Amino acid sequence: MHLEDLHGLFIHELKDIYSAENQILDALPSVIERATDRRLRRALEAHFEETRNQVGTLEEIFRGLGEDPVGQTCMGMQGLLRESGRLLQNEADEDVLDAGIIAAVQRLEHYEIAAYGTVATYAKILGRDEALTLLLEILDEEKQADQDLTEIAKTRVNVRALHLV
Amino acid sequence: MHLEDLHGLFIHELKDIYSAENQILDALPSVIERATDRRLRRALEAHFEETRNQVGTLEEIFRGLGEDPVGQTCMGMQGLLRESGRLLQNEADEDVLDAGIIAAVQRLEHYEIAAYGTVATYAKILGRDEALTLLLEILDEEKQADQDLTEIAKTRVNVRALHLV
Repeated sequence: MHLEDLHGLFIHELKDIYSAENQILDALPSVIERATDRRLRRALEAHFEETRNQVGTLEEIFRGLGEDPVGQTCMGMQGLLRESGRLLQNEADEDVLDAGIIAAVQRLEHYEIAAYGTVATYAKILGRDEALTLLLEILDEEKQADQDLTEIAKTRVNVRALHLV
Repeated sequence: MHLEDLHGLFIHELKDIYSAENQILDALPSVIERATDRRLRRALEAHFEETRNQVGTLEEIFRGLGEDPVGQTCMGMQGLLRESGRLLQNEADEDVLDAGIIAAVQRLEHYEIAAYGTVATYAKILGRDEALTLLLEILDEEKQADQDLTEIAKTRVNVRALHLV
């Protein structure tokens, strides 16, 4: 690969995100399966559906740019999912595991927040207004998903994992 | 490993971050070497020094908790650094490479923002006030480092990578 200009880097980064989202779609069901808290499960299930739509939106962006989304593997997301997979292998109290799941999924969310922030900035500078609008919508969804998990952690899961209540 | 309560998860997550920060210390010099923009280089060099201090602060937190920081490898950071290593192997225009470096380092920053946010929440719930104060200080530094890179990207690097100026 030879990255000659910002447009080339833009496509490179979009392919990275496309791979990352698809890896999340593959991995999330086995994470959801191990979650116990009902509100946490619902939030993760909702995020799974949202991720599926985001993949569709990314495909729409690629079509608009006349580019092919496949052909790249996001190694960052591979590492993050390897780490969450290791967590799930632990023998853990179920409330503690819920807290650990939130910690792991928030790392995935933050990867996406950084990545979508980057490509949205590129889209703006490159004058790709249609892509920009869609990318900013996804960025907001990712930030909201992260905030929802923080809320669930603070009000429900972490407190139960203390084993005081 | 058996995670029985939130304190166990707190230590587990702190060790993860300790490994992540040390991996960044190992990897950052070769990233800095490839950066061209002067303000970007200065920001990365400053972040390297800040990371070194953060490792010291984490060791202080571990001492306060009577725990050993070593013995865990952060697989998430391994993946993120593998990805940035791949970027550096590309033949790229130097302005485009600068933009790519910012994108990669912001992913590391966001890993840390998620991770410190998590352990700060645990420290608060567990009543570990001394650790909480130090962790919130580091969290602020990570957020600031991320914002600084966004500023450099928007005002200098991305615009140059367009090859219009």
